[in-house]
Amino acid sequence: MALIKKPVTGMKDILPQEMLIRDYLIGVIKETYQSFGFTPIETPVVENLPNLTSKQGGDNEKLIFKIMKRGEKFRLEDASCEDDLADSGLRYDLTVPLVRYYANHANELTKPFKALQIGPVFRADKPQRGRFRQFYQCDIDILGEPGNLAEIELILATGTLLGKIGFKGFTVRINDRRILKAMAAYSGFPEDAYDKIFIILDKMDKIGMEGIERELLESGFEEMAVKKYCALFEALPGQPDAVSYLGDTLTGVMEEGTAENLQTIISSVSAAASADFRLAFDPTLVRGMSYYTGTIFEIEIAGLGCSAGGGGRYDEMVGKFTNMQTPACGFSIGFERIITIFMEQGFRVPGTAEKKVYLIEKNMPSDRMCEVMKEAQAEREAGSQVLIAVMNKNKKFQKEQLNAEGYEDFKEFYVNPIH
Amino acid sequence: MALIKKPVTGMKDILPQEMLIRDYLIGVIKETYQSFGFTPIETPVVENLPNLTSKQGGDNEKLIFKIMKRGEKFRLEDASCEDDLADSGLRYDLTVPLVRYYANHANELTKPFKALQIGPVFRADKPQRGRFRQFYQCDIDILGEPGNLAEIELILATGTLLGKIGFKGFTVRINDRRILKAMAAYSGFPEDAYDKIFIILDKMDKIGMEGIERELLESGFEEMAVKKYCALFEALPGQPDAVSYLGDTLTGVMEEGTAENLQTIISSVSAAASADFRLAFDPTLVRGMSYYTGTIFEIEIAGLGCSAGGGGRYDEMVGKFTNMQTPACGFSIGFERIITIFMEQGFRVPGTAEKKVYLIEKNMPSDRMCEVMKEAQAEREAGSQVLIAVMNKNKKFQKEQLNAEGYEDFKEFYVNPIH
Repeated sequence: MALIKKPVTGMKDILPQEMLIRDYLIGVIKETYQSFGFTPIETPVVENLPNLTSKQGGDNEKLIFKIMKRGEKFRLEDASCEDDLADSGLRYDLTVPLVRYYANHANELTKPFKALQIGPVFRADKPQRGRFRQFYQCDIDILGEPGNLAEIELILATGTLLGKIGFKGFTVRINDRRILKAMAAYSGFPEDAYDKIFIILDKMDKIGMEGIERELLESGFEEMAVKKYCALFEALPGQPDAVSYLGDTLTGVMEEGTAENLQTIISSVSAAASADFRLAFDPTLVRGMSYYTGTIFEIEIAGLGCSAGGGGRYDEMVGKFTNMQTPACGFSIGFERIITIFMEQGFRVPGTAEKKVYLIEKNMPSDRMCEVMKEAQAEREAGSQVLIAVMNKNKKFQKEQLNAEGYEDFKEFYVNPIH
Repeated sequence: MALIKKPVTGMKDILPQEMLIRDYLIGVIKETYQSFGFTPIETPVVENLPNLTSKQGGDNEKLIFKIMKRGEKFRLEDASCEDDLADSGLRYDLTVPLVRYYANHANELTKPFKALQIGPVFRADKPQRGRFRQFYQCDIDILGEPGNLAEIELILATGTLLGKIGFKGFTVRINDRRILKAMAAYSGFPEDAYDKIFIILDKMDKIGMEGIERELLESGFEEMAVKKYCALFEALPGQPDAVSYLGDTLTGVMEEGTAENLQTIISSVSAAASADFRLAFDPTLVRGMSYYTGTIFEIEIAGLGCSAGGGGRYDEMVGKFTNMQTPACGFSIGFERIITIFMEQGFRVPGTAEKKVYLIEKNMPSDRMCEVMKEAQAEREAGSQVLIAVMNKNKKFQKEQLNAEGYEDFKEFYVNPIH
């Protein structure tokens, strides 16, 4: 029987050229984040099904690859729905497993715990160009740090990382859910309408302030509140310091210290950042996930047309799911998006070893083979990459092929050394 | 709702200490194998179900984690068995996906193709100590090389790797399925009994030559054949060169060139090997998988009590499943076993960056935070690993904890710098 040649629908094989770039990126990520004290961890790709369907994953919960029970536990005759037959599933993100991991091992981990995770996640999304059903995520999280040291380190580390891999002039936009809420409260919107308002505000990129105003009115909100809300946004660009302006204006409706907290984050990151990036307050930044409780941030790279990563503070989630109240803050970079950009730009991995080829004649006798292997071994120990290949009849074509793979230094060996 | 804290049955979370060792091992593996011209590749962890159940995986096919169909394709009412509801499964090894990958991308790959794969595989085995249902495999394979250059490179590369990570005085045992068969043929056993004979021979470690003889007789084989077979094994230790002795003795029943081929492999590897390891002919080496067609080899590390890896030539498999006749040879090291040894020995990853801690007082004002972050950033750029943590009330305990994690250099920062 012949094998099915293609990978399963929506997943992909990684070819050698892309793999080199992925390995390089993973290497720089680990080195950079570890220099900030983050420690790599790993969880199984298979997760308990109840953990995946705990309403924390939002829409991702509809996209779970479920794994069937086995042996006696698989009882087709008693099954009335899918979940009667499944006992686990593939993880759709790295956050749910992180929270489980932290709950499981809290006593063995440093506090605060600074975790680095890089690994595949799975979503049974509709297959489409550039989006795959297995893809890598790369997350850093700090669990147990209530103060803004967490935000400063997360943003500084990620900015430094992006600088190291060659991105320049990018912006990390930052906001705080408490500012978002206070602006809505100040304008007179009812609290139960906040989520609806933020969904509209999130369209700023596409429809602009006028569009926001129109949609808010169309949604039936009071004109006075809408006008006040929009006026507040419009007043900000004219301020020398928008954060402290909001701190003053929203006194009484905003949690105390929110503005100062954000200012410390922005000034500390800006002072230390060596990479060519800006951390900029953006009062229109919303971010989707409902579990964020404080700061939120997002990377914007010019010309990319979409975010290259983001994160924020989620102080409630760990407590809700583990009964251990634990402040938490995380940053996730768009690993696959960066790989795609690198592939499109024909990125070449820097500083790789010298690549040499030994072409050997067919049927080398034992003593000649020994000589070749010894020489290759010495060169490998000296740091070179040596590929040994049997000479093809069409040696010219063979060399051209190897050349295309980055091999430039060729040496030939024959059965008779005096060739 | 609280999360289930434990990972799914039989799988495990990787704690920071083990993760550092895993990352170190993966780094050395990639560097070493790449210096031999192997190129990393990756396939999805999810594989087409028919590929996994193609009778190539042996007993592993009974241990597949199957993934349920989704949406309209999941038709519980029409299902009469498990496989009606599943469309894919988690890979149980890296060989089946490699063969599929090669068939899918042959035109885009160099010939011969030297692949390196490191990644998780999944088997729904009975959970037991030290064996997990998700574990890493690490395979190198050469597809398209018919000659012994493949064996020489695979063994030399793997021996070099084990030497680099600190193993000394280990042995790679080598045999050839064609020698195994010729010895049985020479003794007068019928061809259809070979597999049964080899299963008994494989117990040499446990029952010795006498035990082999007894079991062969008990299995009903002719006494003359059994005596001749055992005598042949017993004659070998007295020979100055067992391989050429068998080459001479088995003339006519063994494929021509088999002994010379093995001799070239042994002498070439021995001449070039820089690591302290031996490549030794072992006529009793069998290895389980039925797909091997020529050389087979296995790593034996003294005191380990079991193999640390193995491999061999499987010239038929790719052709059988892809209709592209392609000679192939592979070597798989026992990744998890090596990790277990390292953990038991308290292995310390060599040459890691200097680990410093900055302890900062709680509630540092913005300007002081800027100073701290700038200083840390400069040290990180100079190659240090700097962890910044807020000072605990019990600073002594905090330092002890961090000390246990390898941090030795502490610096303290206070709100008032003249402290």
